[in-house]
Amino acid sequence: MGNTKYKKIVNFITDKITRGEWSIGMKIPSQRELASLFEVNRSTVITALEELKAEGLLESKMGQGTMVTNNTWTLLGVSKPVNWNENVSLGFHKQSMKMVKDINEIETKKGHIQLGKSELSPEMFPAKQLKQIMKKVTGDLSPLSYEEPRGNYQLRQAICSYLEKKGIFTSPDSILIVSGALQALQLIAIGLLRKGSTIFLERPSYVFSLSVFQSAGMDLRGLPMDREGLLVNEISNNQEGKGNTVLYTIPTFHNPTGITLGEERRKELLHVCEKEQIPIIEDDVYGDLWIDDPPPLALKGRDRYGNVLYLGSLSKTLTPGLRIGWIVGPESVIERLSDLKMQTDYGSSSLSQRVALEWLSSGLYESHLSFVRQQLKIRRNVAVKALSQHLKGLASWSVPEGGFFIWVKIFRPLHNQHLFEKALAEGILLNPGNIYAHEANQYIRLSYSYASFEEINWGISQLGKILRSMQ
Amino acid sequence: MGNTKYKKIVNFITDKITRGEWSIGMKIPSQRELASLFEVNRSTVITALEELKAEGLLESKMGQGTMVTNNTWTLLGVSKPVNWNENVSLGFHKQSMKMVKDINEIETKKGHIQLGKSELSPEMFPAKQLKQIMKKVTGDLSPLSYEEPRGNYQLRQAICSYLEKKGIFTSPDSILIVSGALQALQLIAIGLLRKGSTIFLERPSYVFSLSVFQSAGMDLRGLPMDREGLLVNEISNNQEGKGNTVLYTIPTFHNPTGITLGEERRKELLHVCEKEQIPIIEDDVYGDLWIDDPPPLALKGRDRYGNVLYLGSLSKTLTPGLRIGWIVGPESVIERLSDLKMQTDYGSSSLSQRVALEWLSSGLYESHLSFVRQQLKIRRNVAVKALSQHLKGLASWSVPEGGFFIWVKIFRPLHNQHLFEKALAEGILLNPGNIYAHEANQYIRLSYSYASFEEINWGISQLGKILRSMQ
Ligand SMILES: Cc1ncc(COP(=O)(O)O)c(C=O)c1O
Ligand SMILES: Cc1ncc(COP(=O)(O)O)c(C=O)c1O
Repeated sequence: MGNTKYKKIVNFITDKITRGEWSIGMKIPSQRELASLFEVNRSTVITALEELKAEGLLESKMGQGTMVTNNTWTLLGVSKPVNWNENVSLGFHKQSMKMVKDINEIETKKGHIQLGKSELSPEMFPAKQLKQIMKKVTGDLSPLSYEEPRGNYQLRQAICSYLEKKGIFTSPDSILIVSGALQALQLIAIGLLRKGSTIFLERPSYVFSLSVFQSAGMDLRGLPMDREGLLVNEISNNQEGKGNTVLYTIPTFHNPTGITLGEERRKELLHVCEKEQIPIIEDDVYGDLWIDDPPPLALKGRDRYGNVLYLGSLSKTLTPGLRIGWIVGPESVIERLSDLKMQTDYGSSSLSQRVALEWLSSGLYESHLSFVRQQLKIRRNVAVKALSQHLKGLASWSVPEGGFFIWVKIFRPLHNQHLFEKALAEGILLNPGNIYAHEANQYIRLSYSYASFEEINWGISQLGKILRSMQ
Repeated sequence: MGNTKYKKIVNFITDKITRGEWSIGMKIPSQRELASLFEVNRSTVITALEELKAEGLLESKMGQGTMVTNNTWTLLGVSKPVNWNENVSLGFHKQSMKMVKDINEIETKKGHIQLGKSELSPEMFPAKQLKQIMKKVTGDLSPLSYEEPRGNYQLRQAICSYLEKKGIFTSPDSILIVSGALQALQLIAIGLLRKGSTIFLERPSYVFSLSVFQSAGMDLRGLPMDREGLLVNEISNNQEGKGNTVLYTIPTFHNPTGITLGEERRKELLHVCEKEQIPIIEDDVYGDLWIDDPPPLALKGRDRYGNVLYLGSLSKTLTPGLRIGWIVGPESVIERLSDLKMQTDYGSSSLSQRVALEWLSSGLYESHLSFVRQQLKIRRNVAVKALSQHLKGLASWSVPEGGFFIWVKIFRPLHNQHLFEKALAEGILLNPGNIYAHEANQYIRLSYSYASFEEINWGISQLGKILRSMQ
């Protein structure tokens, strides 16, 4: 029986190599991973690997694990295959941070308590309403073509009406539909900004967890914040980059801190950016998710110069799975970005666009939002209560007025990777602060949007224990 | 009455400027365009523009048209606004060719006979079957989250089974779901290839109509073709780029020529690329659309070295509106590309992925395909007959064995832009050859997939007249 098990591993790996799925130079999974995959002892794995090494298919290097060195065809001497792995990581686009990649990977699996996830809980998923909308879309199903370069016209109209209620006046020609706000950032990075540009942004910021701007050769310059958000005077003190600088900001329910830029600060910020001629990218994906009171008018609503590019998305208020977001800005900028969007993927899913259109124009957007706001209020309160119970003396935090996050400050700095792994071992997926600013090693971005009440309570109590054990 | 009409134009433009939709430095629409937009005489437009110039909002420059010079707020002396237009076209991503942009723009409008479009006719859109699938997806509607980095697992499994029937053996881990094959090219360009790499490809090629590789700093090297496709020995004669070179090919029902790479050529091509260590990108979006006989086995089906990255899509066989395609390749390469995909847009629409899953796994894919093949056969024959009738003595062509296109060679070289405009004036949208290779100014890519039979007939007869008039 051990025999057939070990053969299974040999055949599996031989298949992977001969089909070209595991290519020359690639590191194969560790012995531990193979053992758990095939549900066998480590010794069975070792026997299999030894056989494959004897055949010349694998090679172990000290400290580097086991690599594919060859394949059966090469052994026949037919010819030398291509080393794709040399190419991998050669393109100009940088890899994600290891921890971010791990989180992306683990997030989609079941069975963890997700205390970092920036998504609404499945409990808030409006299945009934969406079914209704899907039925409507299905009933009217005309051919799903490639859409106009800027996206479905009616959807852009619906977004105009939606924005008008928020005090932002625009027209469909000034809107580009994108596959989520993240794609908006990607298009702006590769299509609008000069290489070597400086991006001012809050420190910490969601954008530090991405490599979208860095990969495009931009220089990220974090600006300090206080309880009212970005310290605006830091911008005028930073004059080297003039003419080559943009500001990226999440003024409302900031990711990761939850902070909202105050009314006066908004005016100052616009004023300074106009004076210094710094265009603004306003990321407003959380703006509608207020819990206590509506936030101040968006920067875009105050913009009289076409100085602000405004980003929105359905990911946080409805579901990220539609992959629908929008950019609002001067027509010339939108035209440039829409050309680029066409070159990148010929537009976002028409099906998603139709569902988004119905969602926005049917009134369901608003009614679902009130429900979500109520839920977020309860959830936030549960989380704050649990924090007071279990993290007292260990950490401090402010109570956010909307959005998904509490930015928990641990009194003592800690090794973020250790914290991450310890929590994971307890079945808890955490987003440590250093993802959002290198030096934020005293912070955790705690999300109350996704986990259930029990999970939030239990997770935070475990977190207390872990923190205590790490002191 | 003329008076209120001219006021309307003044208000419209003033609004555009004060809202920041038309920003400083932007060229406004031409007098002709404004006249047709407002359905007024040119003189009314001129009156309006004069008033706006007097207010200091616009300025005309000889040979450059009329620009926005200011806005009402600037006039108040508040501060200098940002010139976004300076930024526009500064990013490293190149703009599309003007003609390609125009085609993209006009294609989505109604009322033209589309003799260039690479899409199935609405008549072939399987509304009934898709409704059935939408109902199923709606019935099972679980929350639409962000998907796994490589895409919906079941969809990847379904793609494996589908590929197996075509003689390509792979596993879900070796597949990445993308938003169409175009996005696959974009991800490969920015994530896998070194800047300055050389891309061998057929000349002409679809890829010459894009700027995806050029924008990423790659050097496109077109290789000559004959009736059996790419001339393989040209590759080994081109040795400068060794180690820094990939080959992009559309071996089956090539866009734009319709040519299929022969069986022997395929073997040679793989052999040479293995010997020269040149990885291959095989674009197979038309492969299933054979009319007479199935094409030879895909390169990927013969690949024993992980030397081939294979691209597929639902755009040409079902509908481009779903924006679903796939990349198949060595796991290490797929992992790198999936990381990049996450950084770019967090994955393709979950809704589209679910519909694609049902489409592939329900058997509807196959039955719809037989219908489409029959239709394409009729359409191709209609087009060939019309060509014989109306272009005899003017042009020559080969009869394609599948796909969407006939590559019509005009006996006398002609000015492609003139041809394009003349045809457009007759209500016909054409894709002239120079889009696909600069020197292909004697060609038209004629598509028989989209227009109705009557349109194909009438369009080709008009084309004959236009060509005669241009001789
Ligand atoms: C501030 C911010 N912007 C943009 C995004 C991207 O969202 P999407 O691309 O799903 O719209 C996120 C998601 O976490 C976010 O927090
Ligand atoms: C050869 C080829 N590859 C890729 C594409 C892109 O198709 P999609 O991104 O819709 O899958 C096209 C579309 O015209 C094509 O002709």
